[in-house]
Amino acid sequence: MQTELSQTLGIEHAVFGFTPFPAVAAAISRAGGLGVLGAVRYTAPDDLGRDLDWIEAHTGGRPYGLDVVMPARKVEGVTEAQVEAMIPESHRRFVKDLLARHGVPELAEGQPSGWRITGWMEQVARGQLDVALDHPVRLLANALGSPPPDVVARAHDRGIRVAALAGSARHARKHRDAGIDIVVAQGYEAGGHTGEIATMVLTPEVVEAVDPLPVLAAGGIGSGEQAAAALALGAQGVWLGSLWLTTTEATLGSPALTRKLLDAGSGDTVRSRALTGKPARQLRTEWTDAWDAPDGPGTLPMPLQGLLVAEAVSRIQRYEVEPLLGTPVGQIVGRMTEERSVRAVLDDLTRGFERAVQRINRIAGRSGPS
Amino acid sequence: MQTELSQTLGIEHAVFGFTPFPAVAAAISRAGGLGVLGAVRYTAPDDLGRDLDWIEAHTGGRPYGLDVVMPARKVEGVTEAQVEAMIPESHRRFVKDLLARHGVPELAEGQPSGWRITGWMEQVARGQLDVALDHPVRLLANALGSPPPDVVARAHDRGIRVAALAGSARHARKHRDAGIDIVVAQGYEAGGHTGEIATMVLTPEVVEAVDPLPVLAAGGIGSGEQAAAALALGAQGVWLGSLWLTTTEATLGSPALTRKLLDAGSGDTVRSRALTGKPARQLRTEWTDAWDAPDGPGTLPMPLQGLLVAEAVSRIQRYEVEPLLGTPVGQIVGRMTEERSVRAVLDDLTRGFERAVQRINRIAGRSGPS
Repeated sequence: MQTELSQTLGIEHAVFGFTPFPAVAAAISRAGGLGVLGAVRYTAPDDLGRDLDWIEAHTGGRPYGLDVVMPARKVEGVTEAQVEAMIPESHRRFVKDLLARHGVPELAEGQPSGWRITGWMEQVARGQLDVALDHPVRLLANALGSPPPDVVARAHDRGIRVAALAGSARHARKHRDAGIDIVVAQGYEAGGHTGEIATMVLTPEVVEAVDPLPVLAAGGIGSGEQAAAALALGAQGVWLGSLWLTTTEATLGSPALTRKLLDAGSGDTVRSRALTGKPARQLRTEWTDAWDAPDGPGTLPMPLQGLLVAEAVSRIQRYEVEPLLGTPVGQIVGRMTEERSVRAVLDDLTRGFERAVQRINRIAGRSGPS
Repeated sequence: MQTELSQTLGIEHAVFGFTPFPAVAAAISRAGGLGVLGAVRYTAPDDLGRDLDWIEAHTGGRPYGLDVVMPARKVEGVTEAQVEAMIPESHRRFVKDLLARHGVPELAEGQPSGWRITGWMEQVARGQLDVALDHPVRLLANALGSPPPDVVARAHDRGIRVAALAGSARHARKHRDAGIDIVVAQGYEAGGHTGEIATMVLTPEVVEAVDPLPVLAAGGIGSGEQAAAALALGAQGVWLGSLWLTTTEATLGSPALTRKLLDAGSGDTVRSRALTGKPARQLRTEWTDAWDAPDGPGTLPMPLQGLLVAEAVSRIQRYEVEPLLGTPVGQIVGRMTEERSVRAVLDDLTRGFERAVQRINRIAGRSGPS
């Protein structure tokens, strides 16, 4: 699985693995892909620096990347407290009642409210970025629009490729115009923030829209056959996120959540605004059902919704309150049926790719070298 | 593009083309695919018989198929009038007001209310079936669940393969258990009735679920690259519907609708219950917006919604009332940008398939015979 892009980046397989876990990112790079650490959960730049150091020490010089969430527009001088104050009391009450109904305990004094959405805030993302640029990251991805021009320029000065996610050809052209090097076409079936256009349709549209920029296909890819399909559609590589959540290197911190992921079918996700205020695919739970119900209060715009629910999500995960317990994940969750090492996942992917190539050659009436 | 299935059926390319237009069905079969005529619009069996005769006379002995809409459960002794009587007055008023707001004229006396949904009714589908079994159709497809056991048996007695559409692996297994020969995996991005699982995820799931039965991939396929992707996912062929709507052989009967299709992008469709009562992907219009608005009356279950809106849809199409004018179509509509002959579409598809095969072989590090 060698494309022009994978050769340029010096990786063995054109597989890009997005993950919030340093151990998974390092394992992906060690296995011949490119591990990309999601930075959104790091509120303290020092923590991020320490984890990047760790990844560097565990990839033996192989390339890795970082994914930040940085809005292109800057909101000057607004503090988190000021944003918090914009959340209506009725919405706070809805969250409180929902948690009470399910008997979700309070966090004890001093227990970290782990999953903070503050990475959405530009100030935080800037701090992450300063740390990242001090490390030899090879790829800087942005999950929320094009990064600001100065960020693109600073990355390019250091020889870092910049990638950005797009859910439509229009998005993708905006990225190209902002000087982005790689567009990640994120289809409807993907986990996390996603648009309505499915990978099968979106990938070739984005490839045409930004030609000759390289495009990675994201959404619905969990096997080598699916990787082959994405590459047939014109992608120069695949961007996988969900698949790593149930690897042995992942530290989800909740056996109940891991079990839910292993048990879920492809029909058990929903595209909901319940987590961040923008449509994001995630496990369907009583949490998403409550927010999406016709008699619910409606979700708040980003970043308000994320701030509103941050503590609740921490409590649900901390106490593993099963009916409410969820996570962003794509429709590919139906294929995640056992815990395996990152290397086993990648080996399986490359074997499946070979099978798909042989199959497609038979259908095309070519025997080809086997 | 030769698979085991296409060889068994004696067609040159593993391309199955669904269309309501006899001229398109015949042209697809002549060009080396398998044209499948949609029967839902035929209320009079004689009309269907005449059109099947015409197809036969224009395919030079090449195989063709028929697609009926037949519910597996029988509702004994219920007349269309009795079903009509179940439609609430408030819903009739909503339709009337919506049409009045857009100044849609009444049909003149004796003008046919062309697009009737009565093909959904079992009595009508049975009549279609009797006609079909008198013709040498090679494939009988059912768009609504598994066909009843006696229908499968009668088809098999005549050497006719039976296909059925599925939106999930569970659906597909039910078809297999009902003796179906071919499963059409219809992804989220497809036109018409569709589930929530995208083609990229659905195709391999259905292939695994019904192995060794052959699976056709439907949804999001309008190019040879997309066909290659579907075949890499394990499909034994592709099932295309939308793509033919803007061919020169199609007789949509509304230049304004053809123009809308040619102008629409992949983001201009919506999955709505507004047409039949079940979620069906179609052009997004002020008609679908009105039905899907939070303050709308809500749609009725199948077949009530179809009966309720049949006359309105005829009037909108007859008078080409642009804001309301729509049709079932998939996300692939973004690729339909010019009127071309069926043969040109198929030639383009097979060339694109060849390009995709070459590309995938380069990525796999095989030069292969070119």
